[in-house]
Order: sequence, then structure tokens, then C-alpha cells
Amino acid sequence: MKYIYDKITPETPPLKTAVVHPTDENTLRGAFEAAAAKLMTPILVGPEDKIKKAAADAKIDITGFEIVNTEHSHAAAEKAVELVKEGKAEAIMKGKLDTAEFLGPIVAKEGNLRTDKRMSHVFIMQDPGYHKPLYITDAAVNEAPDLMMKKDIIQNAVDLFWKIEGREPKVAILAASEHVEPRQQATLDAAALTVMSMRGQIQGAKVEGPFGMDNAISKKSANLKGIFSEVAGDPDILVFPDLESGNIYFKSRVLMSQAPLGGVVVGARVPIILNSRSAEPEERKASAAIALVASRSTTPRPKK
Amino acid sequence: MKYIYDKITPETPPLKTAVVHPTDENTLRGAFEAAAAKLMTPILVGPEDKIKKAAADAKIDITGFEIVNTEHSHAAAEKAVELVKEGKAEAIMKGKLDTAEFLGPIVAKEGNLRTDKRMSHVFIMQDPGYHKPLYITDAAVNEAPDLMMKKDIIQNAVDLFWKIEGREPKVAILAASEHVEPRQQATLDAAALTVMSMRGQIQGAKVEGPFGMDNAISKKSANLKGIFSEVAGDPDILVFPDLESGNIYFKSRVLMSQAPLGGVVVGARVPIILNSRSAEPEERKASAAIALVASRSTTPRPKK
Repeated sequence: MKYIYDKITPETPPLKTAVVHPTDENTLRGAFEAAAAKLMTPILVGPEDKIKKAAADAKIDITGFEIVNTEHSHAAAEKAVELVKEGKAEAIMKGKLDTAEFLGPIVAKEGNLRTDKRMSHVFIMQDPGYHKPLYITDAAVNEAPDLMMKKDIIQNAVDLFWKIEGREPKVAILAASEHVEPRQQATLDAAALTVMSMRGQIQGAKVEGPFGMDNAISKKSANLKGIFSEVAGDPDILVFPDLESGNIYFKSRVLMSQAPLGGVVVGARVPIILNSRSAEPEERKASAAIALVASRSTTPRPKK
Repeated sequence: MKYIYDKITPETPPLKTAVVHPTDENTLRGAFEAAAAKLMTPILVGPEDKIKKAAADAKIDITGFEIVNTEHSHAAAEKAVELVKEGKAEAIMKGKLDTAEFLGPIVAKEGNLRTDKRMSHVFIMQDPGYHKPLYITDAAVNEAPDLMMKKDIIQNAVDLFWKIEGREPKVAILAASEHVEPRQQATLDAAALTVMSMRGQIQGAKVEGPFGMDNAISKKSANLKGIFSEVAGDPDILVFPDLESGNIYFKSRVLMSQAPLGGVVVGARVPIILNSRSAEPEERKASAAIALVASRSTTPRPKK
């Protein structure tokens, strides 16, 4: 993920990040390394004694990190949202707690972190099998998105792409076929989303689908099937039909083809860093870098 | 797919294969190359003049190939089924016609090609990112399989594995999570299928799920998540939750990581070779080799 780090200069101020319930080695090491790389200034939110014990056990030096003491993990998640509201934190990172418990206060109406869009997850991957960075959505949060959720998922990814890359992305909506098939809901959704984009209901991107994976990423395969499209063979963003297909895909790329990646939840007022328990330290750091670049961006999507 | 060819000796009789409506260059070349490699003895079924014209146009020498003349593509599909019933053909291969039109007479009750199981598709892949041949199912035929369809899909793949590899396979049922999650149907199905296997409703295999792709193919990832299983990190067969996830997966492996593959439809009385329009000649040949090895196998799954 070197290309993400290249977008950060020594003058970029690190992201003030509320780290929720960091009572395990993985989270603390992630926060420590991101801080050492000047990607974030962690604010450790949770039971102070537990945090200090975990740091001592793992021999991680958290001297100099602010700790905001809370009674338990649930209170830590609520406190993190408060810190954002008060302007003291610019991002939130998940520690050792359940994803549902972590996201609860973030998606709650009173938390004021919500926008008018559904939150969704975006991975950025540097894939040795592809010629440029590839945005993957949604492979981590939304289970069986319907049409309007997919619309938000796409717009969220497009907005993140603008912030990081500063240009209009090409978006390929995937299905099992490049034809519209009445019994394959993913192809019907893809058709609807393509026209939504034509009508301005999705903005700032070239959106097209359905594509099979073959004609999405290979112009030769697309042409063989009679598809002549600017998106075919060259998408910046791959939109998956559901959680299973996206999740299985990104894990196969990471584990079978050593593609590095990082990811964030977007669609909230600040980036949410949500790494899985098995995420490698490099993934945690890349995720912090993505959150930082997106937050400091001066090139958001142009509004119509 | 060298390992498949290694299972064929010079004494293995080629497979008498009814090639349905081979009126395009792709199909004719596939049949010609498979014949040259002694994998099949093609019987070209369809309008004789169209077949001869296509062969002449593509400069493919079909002298010596039997042609069974039929009026049109639909009659060709019906005739192929008849040839199997009469013992004149041992496999059926799709030519230039719609998949639905091709499969119609094959799945029809009067055709007598059906077994008590639903038909399904299996790819065999030699993946540079994996340490042994990997069977992928169902990435090509069944759209949104329910529990009982998945049971047949698994048993079909297990039976094919026995015929080709002559031993008991480890089967990993994939989902987006390794936990049973009430809102994720794929994980509920996986749990049910795991217990079906324990109860003998699926036979001849070690079947376990749900797995995320990470803990399915990496023992290290599995152990990190507290999963200690003989299947984790070492499956022979990957079962996908639906057509989208399987289809996107295999295409990404083929196109982004150059994994070669071949595939057949199983669950009928004879193998059905069903390549997509964009299949490379190498894939068509590998599919014929798989059909041949499976048909000539002397080590079917032991019956209880």
C-alpha cells in the first residue's frame, strides 16, 4: 500500500483518533505503529487499568498517549462518539469489542455521526493481478444490500475515491453474468444502478453493470462478448452483489495472491477504522493511512 | 491442468461424445483438439451443411468425424440424449446454442439422463496460490441454491472427486463468516450441511462449514480465530454460497492469477461438458479430459 503513504507529507497533521476499548495486543500495536508513522494521534478510550495491563503484557510503550477512562466497552464506544462531537477526535478505531457493540453508538441518531447515507465499507487493494489500485465494496459490513443500500454503497465509495485520488472513478457492478437475467437479482439491481447513475441519482462517477468478473477486468473478454464500454477492463471500483461474494473475493486475493489492502467504513461524518481480529499489523496501518488521506483531502467530489 | 492428463494412459479409450450443434469455430476447434489428444471421439450432431460450412470457414479438418444430421439446434440436443440412451454416446458437449435450450432435453424426465440428484457444475482448478488441485462448486449452473440443492451440489462434487482422485475429500462450505449468524442464510445452510454430513445424509467426505475464505484456506487464520479443524487450511472442495460468489471467484483466479481450469456438469448419468462462449481452447480440452477420467474411473465413492 505504498501508494497511500506517498500521499502523506511530513506536514500532514496526524489524525486524532479515538481508539475504542484497546485492551488487546493487536489493537494497541496497531495504534502504536500508526502513531510512530505519524498517521494518528491515538486517544485510548476504555478501562484505564485494563488498557495499561494489556500494554505492559505486550511490552508496548503507551507513555504519552492520552487515555480517557470509561467503565466498560459499551461506555467506551459512546465516549468515542462524544469526542467526535466535541471536536476532540477526527476518526474512530475499533479495539477489542464486538462489531455490533462498537457500531451501536455510531449509527444511533442521537450520536449525530450519521449522514443521510447508509454506512458502508471500502477496501483499497494493491493487487498484483491488476494494473492500478482497486476499491472493493462492500466486503465487510452490509449483509444483503437492497437497491437503495447499493446506491449508498456506490456513492460512498465514489466519494472516498474522489478524496483520495482526486478524479472521477470508473465503477463496475459485478454479477454472475453480463446480461440482465430476471431470476438473478444482482443483474436487475446492476441495471437499475446504471440508469440511476445516468439520471444523476449517483454522482461523480462512470457507473456500469452488470459485468461478469471476466468482462469487468479484461477488455479482451468484454469485447469477445460484444461489450464495448469505457469501464470494462479498467474499473477503479468493484461493487459486489452481496457480503458473501465480496468477502470471499478479497480474502482470496489477500491470502492466495498476496494483495495488500486497507479499509475504512464511510458514510459517517468521520472515517471509522474497523479491522477484523485477524487483520495483520500492515493492514491496520494502511487503514489508518486511508482514513488520514481521506480526512485531509482538499479534492472532494464536485457537487452538482 | 497437466495433472488431469497424467491420469490418462495411451490405453484409455477416448470418450464417445455427442457434440450438440457445433456450428461455430470455438466448438469445432475444441472437439478437434480433444480428438487429436485422444480424449474424445466426437459425434457432431446438428445441421450437416452448417457444420461443414463452419469447419471449412475455420479450416478445421473434420474428415472422419461422424455427423448425425438434424434439422436445428433443438433437435440436435434431443438427438444427443437419444444417442446416450442407445449407448452410442458416453458424454454430451455443448456447441453453439443457448444453455437453457441445450440443457432442456437433458433435464427432461423422459430423456432418462436424470438421476435422483439435481445437476450441478464443478470446476477443477490448478491454482498457483494453493497447494493442490481445488474443486469449485457451483460457479456456473445453479443460481440461488437452497439447502437441499446445496446438499446435491456437494454430493455431486464429492462423487466426482472420488472418481478422479480415488480418495475422501475435505469439503469447506464458504460464507462471509465462520460464525453461524441468523441473518446470514449462507451460514445457516453451512451449519445444516455440516450436520447432514455427520448424519450420513452426505456421504464419502469430511464436510464442514461455515468458513470464511481466510480460515478455509489458511490454517494459521483458522487457528487465530480458535478454529481447529482437519478441513481448515486444506480443503479439496470449496462450496460457494451462490452463483455470484462462485462465479466472481473463479473468474478472478483465472484472469488475475492465471489459474488454469476445466469443468463439467455432474449429477446426470453421463458427464455434460458445458463451456462458456469465452472459454479458451485449453479450458475446453481440460474439460474433456475431466469427463474422460471421471467416466473411466474404477474408484467410485464407496457406498454405505
